[in-house]
Parts: sequence; C-alpha cells; structure tokens
Amino acid sequence: MVQMDAVQKRLFEEVAGLHDIPEGAYNLRANGQSISRNTTANIDIRSKEDVSGIDIHVKAGTKNESIHIPVVLSQSGIKEDVYNDFFIGEDCDVLIVAGCGIDNCGSQDSEHDGIHRFYIGKNSRVRYVEKHYGSGDGSGKRILNPVTEVHMDEGSVMEMEMVQIKGVDSTNRTTIAELKADAKLVVQERLMTHGQQQAYSIYKVDLIGDGSAADVVSRSVARDDSYQKLDLCVIGSAACSGHTECDSIIMDNGRILAVPSLEANNIDAALVHEAAIGKIAGEQLVKLMTLGLTEAEAEEQIINGFLK
Amino acid sequence: MVQMDAVQKRLFEEVAGLHDIPEGAYNLRANGQSISRNTTANIDIRSKEDVSGIDIHVKAGTKNESIHIPVVLSQSGIKEDVYNDFFIGEDCDVLIVAGCGIDNCGSQDSEHDGIHRFYIGKNSRVRYVEKHYGSGDGSGKRILNPVTEVHMDEGSVMEMEMVQIKGVDSTNRTTIAELKADAKLVVQERLMTHGQQQAYSIYKVDLIGDGSAADVVSRSVARDDSYQKLDLCVIGSAACSGHTECDSIIMDNGRILAVPSLEANNIDAALVHEAAIGKIAGEQLVKLMTLGLTEAEAEEQIINGFLK
Repeated sequence: MVQMDAVQKRLFEEVAGLHDIPEGAYNLRANGQSISRNTTANIDIRSKEDVSGIDIHVKAGTKNESIHIPVVLSQSGIKEDVYNDFFIGEDCDVLIVAGCGIDNCGSQDSEHDGIHRFYIGKNSRVRYVEKHYGSGDGSGKRILNPVTEVHMDEGSVMEMEMVQIKGVDSTNRTTIAELKADAKLVVQERLMTHGQQQAYSIYKVDLIGDGSAADVVSRSVARDDSYQKLDLCVIGSAACSGHTECDSIIMDNGRILAVPSLEANNIDAALVHEAAIGKIAGEQLVKLMTLGLTEAEAEEQIINGFLK
Repeated sequence: MVQMDAVQKRLFEEVAGLHDIPEGAYNLRANGQSISRNTTANIDIRSKEDVSGIDIHVKAGTKNESIHIPVVLSQSGIKEDVYNDFFIGEDCDVLIVAGCGIDNCGSQDSEHDGIHRFYIGKNSRVRYVEKHYGSGDGSGKRILNPVTEVHMDEGSVMEMEMVQIKGVDSTNRTTIAELKADAKLVVQERLMTHGQQQAYSIYKVDLIGDGSAADVVSRSVARDDSYQKLDLCVIGSAACSGHTECDSIIMDNGRILAVPSLEANNIDAALVHEAAIGKIAGEQLVKLMTLGLTEAEAEEQIINGFLK
C-alpha cells in the first residue's frame, strides 16, 4: 500500500472499509493531496486543472466495476474544497465509495467540503456509499460540508447510502437531485450527533419526468446536547411518486427539528411523507435489560439496530 | 329576527347553520356593524372601545352554553379588521360558533380579517366551529385572513373545526396555540380551493406543559388552477405528544405545497407527522361510475366524503 501512517490507515478503514488497496479504479486523498490513483480500461480519473478535485469518466456499458475515492485529513488546520464530477455513460452498473475521515488532535479546525456532481446516463445504475467520520482529542473542530448534486437521465437508478455516525462536530449536508422519466432514486441517510455537535441535512428532489420515483429515508439519533435540522423536500412536477420519511430518536438533551415538504405541481404526482421523533421506547429498554444488559448497553443495541 | 335581507340570511345559514336567532349568547355582525346581540347570566359580550370587535367573558363553571358570533359582508368594498377576545373561566364547557360569509356582487374587493384570541381556564372545554364561505358573481375578490390565538391553561381541552369549502378567493390563515400541562388540542381543518384561489394555512402549536397533547389534521382539495400552502408546525418542549396530518387531493391544475415541521426540544416529547398528496384514486372513481354515477358526480361524492 502507498505510504501512509497508522491514523490514515484507520481513517480509510472507517470511511471506506479499506484494509488494503481497493480493486478497480480509485483515488486516495490524504491531507489535501492525491496519494494514490488507479484507472481501468473503462474508468478514467483525471485531476481538475482549475480547482481541487477529480473528473471521473465511466464508459457506456461498464458493469460491475467499482470506484473508491475516500479522503482523510490527519493534520489539524486543513481546510479544503474539493470538486468531484462523475460522468457515468449509458447502461452502466457501478459502485462508488466516497467518504471522508478527519482526525484532529490539534487546536485548529479541520474542514473538508466535498462537492460531488453526478451525471448518470440513460438506464445506468449507480450505488453510492458515503461515510463521514471524525476522531481525535484536539480542541479543533472536525467539519464536513458535503454537497451532492445528482442529474439522472431516463431510466437510471441511483441508490445512496449517506452515513455520519460519529465524531463530526459540524455538518451542513445538501443533496439535490433531478430525475428524468422513469429514473429512480433511493436514499438512506443515517445520522448520529453527540456532544455539542450540530448537523443540518437538506434534501431537494425534483421529479420532473413521468414515471420517476424517489424514496428518501432519514434515520437519525441526537444525543447529549446535539442539535439536528432535517429538511426533506420532494417536488412532483410530472406523473411521479415520492416518499420521504424522517425517523428520529432523541436522547439526553438532544434536539431535532424536522421540516419535510411535499410540493405537488401535477395532478398525477403522488407524494407521501412520514416523520416521527421520540425517545427510545421504555418497553424496548426493559426487555433488553431483563435479558441481562445494562441500561447503557440496551440503549446502544437499540440505536445500533435503528441506524443499521 | 332582526332586520336582514335575503343574502344576509343565506350567509348566516352557510357559516353558522342559523335559520333563526340562535339560543344563548350571540353577536351577529353584518357589513361592519353589530346588528343583534344577546348575553346570558354567565356569558357577557362587550364591544371593544379601542378597536373593532368584542370581548366575550364566560363565567367559571358555565356548562352547556353556546356563543354564536357570525359575521357577514354583503356590500362590495368593505375591508375590516375585527378583534374578538374570549375569556373562558375555569371548569366551563361551551360551544363557540364563529365564521364569516362574504357575498360580493361588486367590483371592489371585500375583506374580513378576524383576529380571535382565546384564554381558556383550567379544566375548561371549548368546542370552536369556524366556517368561511364566499359567494357572488362580482369581479371584486372575497378575502378572509383569520388569525386564531389559543392560550390553554392546565387540563383544558379545545376542539377546533376550521372549514373553508367554497368561494374564498384569497386566504391567509394563521393559528397559534400554546398548551400548558395536560391541555389537549384537537384541530380538524377542511379546505377546498377552486378557480384561481389561493390559500395559505399556518399552524404553530407549542406544547410547553407536561402531559399536553395536540392532534392537528388538515384535509384539503385543490381544484382548477388553485394553489394551497399548508404549514403545520408542532413544537414539543415538555413530556408531550403531538400528531399532525396533511391529506390533500389535487385535481385539474391544482397545486399544493405541504411543509409540516416537528421540533423536539425535550427527550419526552413524542411527535409524529404524516402527509400525502395525490389525485382521486382511479379505482374509487370506476367503482362509483359502475353504480351509475357520471365521472363528475363520482368525484363530487368522493370529495364530499373526504371533506366531511
């Protein structure tokens, strides 16, 4: 594997499940620089020339290939904006694993703002996994502000798994998607905040083509004194269907504001939303505690199941 | 009955179900003036001196009495702000019927903005019915902008039936409630817009006392080229429970934006929201049409059932 220290290795493992160099195409970025890259016959990765970031081109018809582009920051005080654009040809089926891990042992804030744009060709299928993670005992903050923009051509499918479980002090997450005819978007967001953390998460999904469909499900847990604002918006401007769901658990002094919205501009748009905020049900705790778990263990188990 | 013309009689019937002078306390208002009033041993109604409107005082312990305060406008070009304050003592059980009907056959806009404030004493129960209605073939608009403010003391119960079915060109409805311990609010809103109408409806319910509960259900239909924005917000700042629901049917070129929000500031707040927007289900129409109804009749029947 390329030159990297133990902290960087741990971060890559946390955000992209990497124990070793991944198969297929990849671009590993650490402390503001690309440290290793691989392209394949079908997948090209080029550095941008005007701004920091990469262009990923996937040839039409590429199937069962993967692209790993994890980012780690292990120096305190780095602040970077990174622009990654994905051009996926028609009839592809690819897995993209992104994610960012920050270890901050210093007193300066570390911040990574990743702006990801996806142009998904007709009838292509993309599975996208993005994990955000923070660690380190410095007083400097770990800040992640991802922007994800998805342009889906006819008949394309995008499945997104957006996870931020631990250690991110402040995040402002914005995901925008636009779906042409028969395109389908499935989003699963998993969010946990603790300590004094703040998380803002915005989704805006535009269903502009007939037959398009979106299913956006956000599950979140706010512990300690943390705060979350969840903003899920689905706009139906065609014969389409949209479903969004916010399920949240609050613990300690955690606070959550959920502001979903449904906008129907077409008589053939069918939009549904559900939201629920509450604490862990007492019966669930009691049941696990009668099986021998402490209250804290029982809570952990319930939360792990909820965020799985 | 007091002096009123046929149009006024029809409006009073539409908004308050009145065929004759109501029993109990009442204040009938027409074209900017109080035209008839009755008070009882327990219910006093006094005109305000600084602004247009009345103060209604209900003595503690008053049970099974009613207050009718409907308003009609049958002249074109009237614009009025009316402030009505309700002071309900402890341990009451009363019915309040409000509502406003506008008949506008002229070219000038007619507008009634009613600002209703309720101060509901401990353990009192209030049933509040408010109907808004417009008619007349003039080019002047029929505008109603009600503001309803509800302050609920411990253990009080408020049931609100807020209905605007027909003929109101523009409405901006704001309802704010604040609930102390064990208070309970139940709101049923029924809204229909047609033609070029616009309706904005905002609910903001603050659950500040332990054991408080709110259930806010809005059902609406947007026909023709009409537009609705529904904004239901429940804030849980105590051990409380809140449920809100927006169910909407769109027809023709109707458009609806639903922006509910749940804000949990206390670990013992349990908040739930549901929303759905869509057109009338095809199977329902077909079923009624096989029973001999035309498509239009079938639609009417489904909508009437939905808004009942």
